[in-house]
Amino acid sequence: MNSADFATSLNLDDAGTEMYALVSELYPICRSITGGGVRETLRILQSRIPLTIHEVPSGTPVFDWNIPREWNIRDAWVKNAQGERVIDFRKSNLHVVSYSVPVRTRIPLEELKKHLFTLPDHPDWIPYRTSYYAENWGFCLSHNELMRLKDGEYEVWIDASLGKGHLTYGEYHLAGESAEEVLISCHVCHPSLCNDNLSGIALAVSLAQRLGQVKRRYSYRFLFTPGTIGSITWLSLNEAQLSRIKHGLVLACVGDSGKFTYKRTRRGNAEIDRAVAYVLRHAGSDHEILNFSPYGYDERQFCSPAFNLPVGCFMRTPHGRFPEYHTSADNLDLVRPQNLSDSFARCLSVLQILEENRAYLNQNPKCEPQLGKRGLYRTMGGETDGKSRELAMLWLLNLSDGSHTLLDIAEESGLEFGLISSARDSLVQHGLLKERPEEAQPTCS
Amino acid sequence: MNSADFATSLNLDDAGTEMYALVSELYPICRSITGGGVRETLRILQSRIPLTIHEVPSGTPVFDWNIPREWNIRDAWVKNAQGERVIDFRKSNLHVVSYSVPVRTRIPLEELKKHLFTLPDHPDWIPYRTSYYAENWGFCLSHNELMRLKDGEYEVWIDASLGKGHLTYGEYHLAGESAEEVLISCHVCHPSLCNDNLSGIALAVSLAQRLGQVKRRYSYRFLFTPGTIGSITWLSLNEAQLSRIKHGLVLACVGDSGKFTYKRTRRGNAEIDRAVAYVLRHAGSDHEILNFSPYGYDERQFCSPAFNLPVGCFMRTPHGRFPEYHTSADNLDLVRPQNLSDSFARCLSVLQILEENRAYLNQNPKCEPQLGKRGLYRTMGGETDGKSRELAMLWLLNLSDGSHTLLDIAEESGLEFGLISSARDSLVQHGLLKERPEEAQPTCS
Amino acid sequence: MNSADFATSLNLDDAGTEMYALVSELYPICRSITGGGVRETLRILQSRIPLTIHEVPSGTPVFDWNIPREWNIRDAWVKNAQGERVIDFRKSNLHVVSYSVPVRTRIPLEELKKHLFTLPDHPDWIPYRTSYYAENWGFCLSHNELMRLKDGEYEVWIDASLGKGHLTYGEYHLAGESAEEVLISCHVCHPSLCNDNLSGIALAVSLAQRLGQVKRRYSYRFLFTPGTIGSITWLSLNEAQLSRIKHGLVLACVGDSGKFTYKRTRRGNAEIDRAVAYVLRHAGSDHEILNFSPYGYDERQFCSPAFNLPVGCFMRTPHGRFPEYHTSADNLDLVRPQNLSDSFARCLSVLQILEENRAYLNQNPKCEPQLGKRGLYRTMGGETDGKSRELAMLWLLNLSDGSHTLLDIAEESGLEFGLISSARDSLVQHGLLKERPEEAQPTCS
Repeated sequence: MNSADFATSLNLDDAGTEMYALVSELYPICRSITGGGVRETLRILQSRIPLTIHEVPSGTPVFDWNIPREWNIRDAWVKNAQGERVIDFRKSNLHVVSYSVPVRTRIPLEELKKHLFTLPDHPDWIPYRTSYYAENWGFCLSHNELMRLKDGEYEVWIDASLGKGHLTYGEYHLAGESAEEVLISCHVCHPSLCNDNLSGIALAVSLAQRLGQVKRRYSYRFLFTPGTIGSITWLSLNEAQLSRIKHGLVLACVGDSGKFTYKRTRRGNAEIDRAVAYVLRHAGSDHEILNFSPYGYDERQFCSPAFNLPVGCFMRTPHGRFPEYHTSADNLDLVRPQNLSDSFARCLSVLQILEENRAYLNQNPKCEPQLGKRGLYRTMGGETDGKSRELAMLWLLNLSDGSHTLLDIAEESGLEFGLISSARDSLVQHGLLKERPEEAQPTCS
Repeated sequence: MNSADFATSLNLDDAGTEMYALVSELYPICRSITGGGVRETLRILQSRIPLTIHEVPSGTPVFDWNIPREWNIRDAWVKNAQGERVIDFRKSNLHVVSYSVPVRTRIPLEELKKHLFTLPDHPDWIPYRTSYYAENWGFCLSHNELMRLKDGEYEVWIDASLGKGHLTYGEYHLAGESAEEVLISCHVCHPSLCNDNLSGIALAVSLAQRLGQVKRRYSYRFLFTPGTIGSITWLSLNEAQLSRIKHGLVLACVGDSGKFTYKRTRRGNAEIDRAVAYVLRHAGSDHEILNFSPYGYDERQFCSPAFNLPVGCFMRTPHGRFPEYHTSADNLDLVRPQNLSDSFARCLSVLQILEENRAYLNQNPKCEPQLGKRGLYRTMGGETDGKSRELAMLWLLNLSDGSHTLLDIAEESGLEFGLISSARDSLVQHGLLKERPEEAQPTCS
Repeated sequence: MNSADFATSLNLDDAGTEMYALVSELYPICRSITGGGVRETLRILQSRIPLTIHEVPSGTPVFDWNIPREWNIRDAWVKNAQGERVIDFRKSNLHVVSYSVPVRTRIPLEELKKHLFTLPDHPDWIPYRTSYYAENWGFCLSHNELMRLKDGEYEVWIDASLGKGHLTYGEYHLAGESAEEVLISCHVCHPSLCNDNLSGIALAVSLAQRLGQVKRRYSYRFLFTPGTIGSITWLSLNEAQLSRIKHGLVLACVGDSGKFTYKRTRRGNAEIDRAVAYVLRHAGSDHEILNFSPYGYDERQFCSPAFNLPVGCFMRTPHGRFPEYHTSADNLDLVRPQNLSDSFARCLSVLQILEENRAYLNQNPKCEPQLGKRGLYRTMGGETDGKSRELAMLWLLNLSDGSHTLLDIAEESGLEFGLISSARDSLVQHGLLKERPEEAQPTCS
């Protein structure tokens, strides 16, 4: 394989602009774990990538869970005695607790307050709340708005439906030379929240578009699923095919300005873990690598003990670590095109390493081969500095004993992966290296 | 098993007071590796715990050694020309070198000095010296006392006996659900020295009393033996049963005010090593963990290469690291009730971890089970912080693949062991976790 | 085996003086990878050690290479229009690019400059350049000399021959009790350069002389070969016997004043790696341990993947890290007798550890044996400090379970290797330790 460069001739600025445009287009939609908002979102994605949309009926058992009833909402408000909408779903879909049951009632403020949620520490922001699995209803509002509510009777209306229907998710399979797969997953269940996770959705779409344009060793599977119940559903329906997944990334919160954060797979040292760590380390900017923990996004399900898939989570600032998280302040200002395109570039570098990371066999393992007679070595000796390209060849020859992959060699030599893979091309071309047969490739943790 | 709390409803202040009272009661007795002092000590212990007292005849071969002759002393003194006792055993039993042969003679000061031992750097303190295996006699005294001795003849009398008799040791076996044992050992051969090791004796007695009151998975074996020869004797007589010992602690110097010090087993990463390290780390105060070395207390014998038992040594300030060590200054002032009760609390925490440290199997290992429908999860979603109890359950479910024990999970999650074991109780109760069968429990190093 | 001390009764100052004298004697000779300079060098070494000189004909295939044509040079110069020698081989043999083809021509300065090499950053120094495998010719000179050359015609003469001949190398095998070998290798192909590598040659000669005088467990093989092609040739001719090599050191740049630098074998934790690290650490002075890299001296060939011999590289300042490297400033001032003798002392310590590093079996592994009855332990007990010799015995007894060598025990105990090996002698003498049979000795990585 030649070293294709996933980023070559790619205009990253344009990519950032496109991703931001998609985030903006999806922002107004009221999504939840089921319902019309998810369907509308996936239909918009279909205009960019040939997504398959799956509908799974309410009540279907998926492992320990059942597909919940479908929830849809048309309008909701709270009116004061003067008939003014003091809380209005049309102004922000965050105002209604997701999965609120339909309600039409008139209650005094004290009673109403039991159903109101605010953030006293951020009195201008509306919180995001859900009640998927316990029947309830509620409104979220800014703490300042709450403070302005006067005693008295209020009229409450939630024009929602909760009944038999479907759970909807999107899937896109992009075939490569091999049936082995890289899984890219993101959650699509949040309403008007940009970083969490319209940013992840936009990044997944751009990756899918780009990977469709290049030569691929691996097949790629993109999942756009509601959080938790969506990945559980997909795992349940696809259990027999999970062994094809060799690497995976969950994408979330990739549009803010924070440093990159990667959460390792449960295995802790899978090839994807090493590839991401390598890319973030060599990219030079500040970043953080976290150990796996069973709290976060859908990696919780992919990494449950019976599956233990090599799926990590790629983020900028993780959930709960930025103040705007799960509030109305996670808006179009928090996400920037430049941040999205940087995330895109890192992910492409990671995927390129996975694509290229093979083990080779030195065809001339007794002493060094004479590189000079092949035109691969400077002819004048005695100079001090080993040229880096020659060094890359020497490292490749020395470590290509069948047990070291290109990533191993890049890590051990401290040289750039791109330099290693390019030197590999020369050595393969001259018959000095040969790729190990598939069945003899070393398996990574 | 429910998580019994060894420390619940325990008044640690009272425990400290009791231990200090026992130290005070044992302090005046002149112990050595054999003889009446050990017997009297063990009889006092019998008033608190049902100790079995073993008597092994002099001359009995025990591995490379033989039980020595029994030594007893009634009185000893050095008188000056005026007939005044200038050194008097009745004032301190440290004045006589332990195992001194009987002697009655009159010698000039220069001759006498060959048998006198002092500590010039601590001129007020009497050193502690022994000559168990080479026939000799001698007196220990403060350097100031030595300086005051005037030239002239001195009368020397050591009214001791050294002859056929027995080596005496105490043993207490406390049966638990399992025949597997935890060994608690302390040396009982030192005369009037408080920290080394009346403190260890008192702590072992309190542990035995407390463990007798609680539900126990393990059986516990307490040994009160003279140092070195005593543990060698016990090992020689009990060689066939050593495989029952799964964990062990030697207790010594646990009453001074120094930080806790734990010396690892020879294996270096046995379960007891990890449990003690976990407790000391989480207790928050300064402490030190030392690697095994073949110098110290009876762990030298338990960890000899043919046995290599998982026995560590629990101390505050180790032998030789406090100036009062092996001198008359290791007295009732050096040991404090509070220090003893802190040592007691740490040991109980360690033993409780050993008792509870089992591996479980997630009964629902494909994705997370739905905790909410079992009332184990908050119903309102969207809040930032994962509650620690829910986190503990998620960690337990994720890592209960049969190869992780509760201690592994506590270490990996960074959560409190008590929180983990309590969450375990809930999950077992709801059928989500099941203890691995005994034969499939992972073995620790 | 008794612990012979390789350094006992050795006058290290004299050794330094002798090594420096050898460096001085070899300095004027114009060496290259073949030719009369190497032969003359080896003949001088034969006056000190019984070296076998091998001659391998040009054209002989050695793995991927062929023995090159033999190069010899008699004289060379560049004359200006006035007939003055402005560059003169007789003044420094560095003036001619090694393996320059014969040339006699008259060319203008601009044309000549394509064949001139200088070091603008060090305008007084002459660089060292070679062109072994590409036909070329050239002169090296100081940048100041170059600046002084005036425009005009220059006469160029290189009176060299390049034709069928031989590659010459020296080998010295010193038999020990065992056929297993320690390999000591140095390159002999550089012209008038002292640190790189007359220093390595002189050190190898002194080691060979000293090892010839002492009792040896191992056999020793000393190689004096031209760099790269020489070791490739030797490996090609001796492939069947390579399994005898248990440890090895390449010696280079051992005469400068820099700190010691050791480059690990490709295995990374071979016994030689641990022995050198132990010696440098305990010698107390600053030093550096580098991981293996496939760039440097002949360890590149010994550590090629098909052989992967446990051969490290012992240096002071490595190639390319001192400014005088590969220039005329690597002269008799850069190398000092004291530096050479320090290098000698370190190497002897390393070799002594290899010689003595065996695993033993405690013949009394159940508890400690009674050292006192054998006169191996102080008779008076109670003193604070464990004497280091007794500690060494306790460590040996505790860890002599067949899987720990003396070096393991020295590392784990923190005690001096010499103390450990001397205590070993006592314990063997008293029948408490027994050397493990050869076939059961643990193998080191």
